[in-house]
Amino acid sequence: MKKRFIGVGFLAAVGLMMALGGAGMSIAEDKVISRSEQWAEKYPHQYKSWKKTSENDEISDMIKKKPQLAILWAGYGFAKDYNAPRGHFYALQSNINSLRTGAPVGPATGPMPTACWSCKSTDVPRIVAEQSELEYFTGKWAKYGNEMVNPIGCANCHDSETGDPAISSAYLVRGLEAAGLKSTNIDGEDMRTLGCAQCHSEYYFKATEWTDKDGNKKVAKVVTFPWDNGLSAEDMETYYDDIGFKDWTHKISKAPMLKAQHPGYEIFQSGIHAKSGVTCADCHMPLIKEGDETYSSHHLVSPLDDMENICLDCHDQDVEELRAVVERKFERKEQLMEIAMNSLAKAHLEAGKAWEAGASEAEMEEILTDIRHAQWRWDYAIASHGSYFHAPEETLRLLALANETAQEARLKLVKVLAKHGAADFVAPDFSTKEKAQALAGVDLEKLVAEKLEFKATLLEEWTASAIEKGKLDPDARKGMSNKTSYSK
Amino acid sequence: MKKRFIGVGFLAAVGLMMALGGAGMSIAEDKVISRSEQWAEKYPHQYKSWKKTSENDEISDMIKKKPQLAILWAGYGFAKDYNAPRGHFYALQSNINSLRTGAPVGPATGPMPTACWSCKSTDVPRIVAEQSELEYFTGKWAKYGNEMVNPIGCANCHDSETGDPAISSAYLVRGLEAAGLKSTNIDGEDMRTLGCAQCHSEYYFKATEWTDKDGNKKVAKVVTFPWDNGLSAEDMETYYDDIGFKDWTHKISKAPMLKAQHPGYEIFQSGIHAKSGVTCADCHMPLIKEGDETYSSHHLVSPLDDMENICLDCHDQDVEELRAVVERKFERKEQLMEIAMNSLAKAHLEAGKAWEAGASEAEMEEILTDIRHAQWRWDYAIASHGSYFHAPEETLRLLALANETAQEARLKLVKVLAKHGAADFVAPDFSTKEKAQALAGVDLEKLVAEKLEFKATLLEEWTASAIEKGKLDPDARKGMSNKTSYSK
Repeated sequence: MKKRFIGVGFLAAVGLMMALGGAGMSIAEDKVISRSEQWAEKYPHQYKSWKKTSENDEISDMIKKKPQLAILWAGYGFAKDYNAPRGHFYALQSNINSLRTGAPVGPATGPMPTACWSCKSTDVPRIVAEQSELEYFTGKWAKYGNEMVNPIGCANCHDSETGDPAISSAYLVRGLEAAGLKSTNIDGEDMRTLGCAQCHSEYYFKATEWTDKDGNKKVAKVVTFPWDNGLSAEDMETYYDDIGFKDWTHKISKAPMLKAQHPGYEIFQSGIHAKSGVTCADCHMPLIKEGDETYSSHHLVSPLDDMENICLDCHDQDVEELRAVVERKFERKEQLMEIAMNSLAKAHLEAGKAWEAGASEAEMEEILTDIRHAQWRWDYAIASHGSYFHAPEETLRLLALANETAQEARLKLVKVLAKHGAADFVAPDFSTKEKAQALAGVDLEKLVAEKLEFKATLLEEWTASAIEKGKLDPDARKGMSNKTSYSK
Repeated sequence: MKKRFIGVGFLAAVGLMMALGGAGMSIAEDKVISRSEQWAEKYPHQYKSWKKTSENDEISDMIKKKPQLAILWAGYGFAKDYNAPRGHFYALQSNINSLRTGAPVGPATGPMPTACWSCKSTDVPRIVAEQSELEYFTGKWAKYGNEMVNPIGCANCHDSETGDPAISSAYLVRGLEAAGLKSTNIDGEDMRTLGCAQCHSEYYFKATEWTDKDGNKKVAKVVTFPWDNGLSAEDMETYYDDIGFKDWTHKISKAPMLKAQHPGYEIFQSGIHAKSGVTCADCHMPLIKEGDETYSSHHLVSPLDDMENICLDCHDQDVEELRAVVERKFERKEQLMEIAMNSLAKAHLEAGKAWEAGASEAEMEEILTDIRHAQWRWDYAIASHGSYFHAPEETLRLLALANETAQEARLKLVKVLAKHGAADFVAPDFSTKEKAQALAGVDLEKLVAEKLEFKATLLEEWTASAIEKGKLDPDARKGMSNKTSYSK
């Protein structure tokens, strides 16, 4: 296997220009240039390629494609709205448009905490630098509505003063420390994976009491990587079990659920590309030649869109042969994923029926733990981009385990159902988004109406305020589409 | 990925020296040199390396290691005795010593057909050349007891006249034809995989009526590769379902079962090594330098025993890193295999209980089909050598499917059991070989006593006869151990 460490030269010898304080972090000079267009003059090619992420604006409604999702996430925001990822340019818009972030009416209203802006905007490191990390993590999402106006961009991965690659998220550094991984002297080569790991990782919001400089006691919801035991699904499952953490109580089964975010960095580590020394940037940020200049693409798309330039840099097979290999990997994942989702959905619905039929807490306890673990393993396996390619074997193993655990829950459930006179119960049809959301108790019409009201009112105020304060250049949004899963 | 097609030069341009007739096949001049020691003078290095396969003589009792196997194969020979493979040198001895081949008392007694000698001895192509393929496939195993005296060796993969690599098994050629794969002009490069595919493949014994040259109507049990629909587990499952074939009826569950043999060639095709043009011989028959001479090793062991010489010919990682990658693949397979075997064993035992409790054929039909399919997928996934390495993703996919299908059977079974008043049935303990074989109705003591009697009598006669007729050189067995799973 040839190894290629592209572009390391111009990234190397970059120091991490951050001082990580106990109460948060501060980037040198506390100055973050959050408007990416202000980087364009100095880095025109990189900026232009980053801007191309705006072309990836299509909404792919995953709940429509996989209606089981609404059952799996019943009682949690994801059951309302969940779309395939779009370009970085749309990270912020997707967050604002999502029915998950609801329809706040003022700075103190929810439903989400401020932490939900993390990984959506270059204004996050700016606010952290201006106000402290713990202040940023305190309060409701709407608190920063008029501050978070620029999507993921330059300042998320580069030092605003030097332009060098730099980590802007202290929680990644804390996660690496907890995992016993390299957390200091992070250099340009490290950044080729860790830059991405800042966001493409698993996290939860850890309630953290703190006192601000005026002596006010506050509780921050701090993005925390559950890496103390390691990066595998089992390691994190143990972490969450040990601290008794749950993201929510399932609306149908009442199971204490975990929601995997997108443990892409973690699962990638178990795959052969990572083990061969390949970094995220090697495949997702290929070098582009334009005239006399060579630069690293910031378009960040699937390498399948440019296999000649990316895959063939290491592999010498025919592109179509390689594509067929990747497609087969995808098919295998889809097959096991579909099976696991169906088993999980039925387990939730059968558990719901068991409660209805009079099952006791004692009868249900082990079953609900099974459901929690099964869904976590499924979610860890597929929640990140391209796990089927980054770590195909780990993905298949976890999907198999997820299904096994869900089926074990169902085997126990049949016995409980039989005991309570409901042996013949068959889970209702969840084969469309409408049917599944109805079972999950999602009132889509109401959610959409509220969201549209929010967009027509408070969101307009936020945007106007940001423009007025010079936080947002309206020209930066020229030609930006505004698609949602609920657009007419 | 560097590609290496080692040793193709000296193998290339080899014609297939066989005329495949309708009633079988005949090798040129109908002369097969079945005693491998007779090749030693011309091919001293190759012979010496082949002879080293005699060092791999340890018995690893798989039923002891994985007691579930006795349940899975209840009613079939494999439940009696099943050991990990040993060197080619012991292929014949393992077959004779196995409790599966029973204790015949004369040339017409069973339990196995003549086909069971296939892939055990160089005397098979000799007998086929002397008597015709259909005659060879007619009758009981004991018919050829005094003919089959030399283990897998030179004549299985080489033309006795020219020494060139050549297919000796017509059934492989018919299989390739049925699958639409290359079946003519098989050259030296093809042989680097197809030589192995002669035996390391899936097959069944197809009952075939024929008339011998004296006009006698006979029924041959012909080794047949079920490849008409393709090489995947699903392709073969469909093939067997379409012709209503079963290897046996399960003793406990009554399911119409399939036994996968060792579809190593088939599953290897789905893996990345095959897709990258790597052949079996590239990794299992590395070139050895001795003084001025270079030859292809015929020792045929795991490449893990010589990674420096084998893996590093294409890969440039550290050997220990590569070994860790392979070990992780093994662990993943073991994990899913264990889960699938437990589900399958429970499914059989629960089905047995359902019959006992009064379940009807109609209630059981779908369940038994599930069990048949589940076990086939498990068996296809793991029955061949090193599938976890040759095709890790396909192996994991199939183990996941096997388990899912077994668990679906079990979910149906709980309902049937509940209907017949046995909702609380829990499958009995099968955690040791003794317990599992007892459940499977294996009378090991009786089988061993019969086998020892056979070895002390008829087998001695066979050996003496073969020596007398010049078919066996007793010196060829000097220093040969005689280990079995039932040795004291």
